[in-house]
Amino acid sequence: MQEKRLSADRLGAFSDAVIAVIITVMVLELKAPEGSRFADLLPLWPTAISYAASYLFIAVIWVNHHHLLHLVRQPTPRLIWLNFVHLFAVSLLPFATAWVARSHMAAAPVVVYAVIFLLIDLAYLAFERTVLTQADQSLISERVRTWTQRRTLLAVLVFAAGTAIAPFMPLLGFATVCCALLLYLRPEAISGLAKQIKS
Amino acid sequence: MQEKRLSADRLGAFSDAVIAVIITVMVLELKAPEGSRFADLLPLWPTAISYAASYLFIAVIWVNHHHLLHLVRQPTPRLIWLNFVHLFAVSLLPFATAWVARSHMAAAPVVVYAVIFLLIDLAYLAFERTVLTQADQSLISERVRTWTQRRTLLAVLVFAAGTAIAPFMPLLGFATVCCALLLYLRPEAISGLAKQIKS
Amino acid sequence: MQEKRLSADRLGAFSDAVIAVIITVMVLELKAPEGSRFADLLPLWPTAISYAASYLFIAVIWVNHHHLLHLVRQPTPRLIWLNFVHLFAVSLLPFATAWVARSHMAAAPVVVYAVIFLLIDLAYLAFERTVLTQADQSLISERVRTWTQRRTLLAVLVFAAGTAIAPFMPLLGFATVCCALLLYLRPEAISGLAKQIKS
Amino acid sequence: MQEKRLSADRLGAFSDAVIAVIITVMVLELKAPEGSRFADLLPLWPTAISYAASYLFIAVIWVNHHHLLHLVRQPTPRLIWLNFVHLFAVSLLPFATAWVARSHMAAAPVVVYAVIFLLIDLAYLAFERTVLTQADQSLISERVRTWTQRRTLLAVLVFAAGTAIAPFMPLLGFATVCCALLLYLRPEAISGLAKQIKS
Repeated sequence: MQEKRLSADRLGAFSDAVIAVIITVMVLELKAPEGSRFADLLPLWPTAISYAASYLFIAVIWVNHHHLLHLVRQPTPRLIWLNFVHLFAVSLLPFATAWVARSHMAAAPVVVYAVIFLLIDLAYLAFERTVLTQADQSLISERVRTWTQRRTLLAVLVFAAGTAIAPFMPLLGFATVCCALLLYLRPEAISGLAKQIKS
Repeated sequence: MQEKRLSADRLGAFSDAVIAVIITVMVLELKAPEGSRFADLLPLWPTAISYAASYLFIAVIWVNHHHLLHLVRQPTPRLIWLNFVHLFAVSLLPFATAWVARSHMAAAPVVVYAVIFLLIDLAYLAFERTVLTQADQSLISERVRTWTQRRTLLAVLVFAAGTAIAPFMPLLGFATVCCALLLYLRPEAISGLAKQIKS
Repeated sequence: MQEKRLSADRLGAFSDAVIAVIITVMVLELKAPEGSRFADLLPLWPTAISYAASYLFIAVIWVNHHHLLHLVRQPTPRLIWLNFVHLFAVSLLPFATAWVARSHMAAAPVVVYAVIFLLIDLAYLAFERTVLTQADQSLISERVRTWTQRRTLLAVLVFAAGTAIAPFMPLLGFATVCCALLLYLRPEAISGLAKQIKS
Repeated sequence: MQEKRLSADRLGAFSDAVIAVIITVMVLELKAPEGSRFADLLPLWPTAISYAASYLFIAVIWVNHHHLLHLVRQPTPRLIWLNFVHLFAVSLLPFATAWVARSHMAAAPVVVYAVIFLLIDLAYLAFERTVLTQADQSLISERVRTWTQRRTLLAVLVFAAGTAIAPFMPLLGFATVCCALLLYLRPEAISGLAKQIKS
């Protein structure tokens, strides 16, 4: 049993390391300007805003991942592979963030940005279902299961809407993606569940 | 309870990974010169000095963070988010360091450098207050609480002074920021407190 | 004994950190295009495909490494050094991946790519033998030992075949390397073994 | 006591993360060539050799650090700061490695390379002394203490010799540095000591 926790911990630690590198690599796009006046910072605003937004989103992803892993006793091969798919989609964020910033929120880059979040959310949906299915069935209330599934499905729909809107109105598409992420700002309901299960 | 420690440990491990990447990414600015004589190292001095200074400062941040986390039994959502705000501000240091180095300590970059340290310290102030509030009240002496709060407030004032001085005398502003960091060189008082609480 | 696990855990954690950085560093090759239309993504396809393939392969390497480390109680100096040789070969993958992508799968880069996988597999073979030899002999069935050795030898042969084919038909050589990796997609047999041993 | 181990573990984990990033960052200097023939790899040989050498040296550093940390029960502030000094010196290796490679082993870069190793070894010497002093005195035999101190002093002398030789005969200076590292290839004597102490 101690052994099982170690294994779930190693999965968490590896995901942490990958996410830590991704979140830090993005800041490398924020290059020091050639000039040395405040005005030289102005052209950096698109990069700064998309760095801040993507940092927030990756933090949201980490917090949710962290709460979900509390429910895992022994990661199955399926769970480990879903986690790799999830991390792969997350690893594409610095690329999409840089493109959105460089193009000053043009249509195509925002579509790619929204599609990547859609992929992240679909992988998260599969990861979440697997975790909830493998956890002790008698301990997870029907209410939490239903609530979680509805939230994730709603998020998938909003990310899909963002993707559909972006080609025509990129700024509104970007705002829609941001709205979907608000759904994930409070993962404590699942965390409360985790505590119930563990105690 | 074992579970609770693991969770605080994962927060610590994630912060460690982010700080480890940030501290190492800065050294990438120190590019090998084209020539192969000692004289070719000379133009690297501003970069070398600001790398060394920022390395020292991030080490100071890590040590204080490390001591503070000893007091955390179970990280609350509020604490996790304050930690992300803190790490976000820290992640901007390589950018500011590179700009200070490239501009040979011009006014605007030093102001940005000081403002980022002010942000780091404000986030740390909020993080510290939350940790001290959540820790068992009977175990933390009034003396330590008062001392810690005064030190952090003093540091905020000194960083603010550095920000105010930098536009007119950048070198003095930079020196003021360095002075503020000296206040954090000895986090053992809190550590001693932590040991008292744990034993 | 607790001490021994910590030491094996530190070896695992260090390998995780190295692999996490390697897997993330590769995505930096995927640079945001200058233009902001979908068509501007087209020239990125070779990079995208080789990034996805190498990500998958490093995930396969991590999963197998993860399962094998379950059998290690106390890493010997020999095991630690074999692990460093293995990680060294893995660390060359981003270089080979970038070259394969840049050259659009030309002969020489694919040969280098196949040779690096051959090296990774040979180091893994030595690592695996050492782990199986050091593990408690009475607990590992002859069947598992034979099966594992045959699989690894077969993989070495297929990687060698890929290396031999690549100079003449690079695409077929690349496909052969991919086939060899399929042999490693299911490390659970060894994992099942590990569980038997630990319980 | 459990608390104390966690703290020593966090120091180890942070050092691991920094070393993992450093060892991986160096491989980024190995850029994929423009051409796609084997001949295009030829100009990469100096980079490849110095990457391989520095990888080996950082592995040696990690193994020794890993064995020494076994003796630490509770890291003191002094030990934490010595560790940061050690890591700072290690973090300069990618820079020196890149310069040695770019200049094809010219005199000045090899001197810098040797000086950085001298710094790493001096920091390690102080770290080692502090660990051995803080460890339980009755448990460390006089023989091991004497042997360890003599080895480290010898290494300091050889690194200093390498630094002195490099300005006149860079290749011999580089070879001398490599010889000094051979002294560290077998840290198991200290490890054996650690096991004695812990059991």
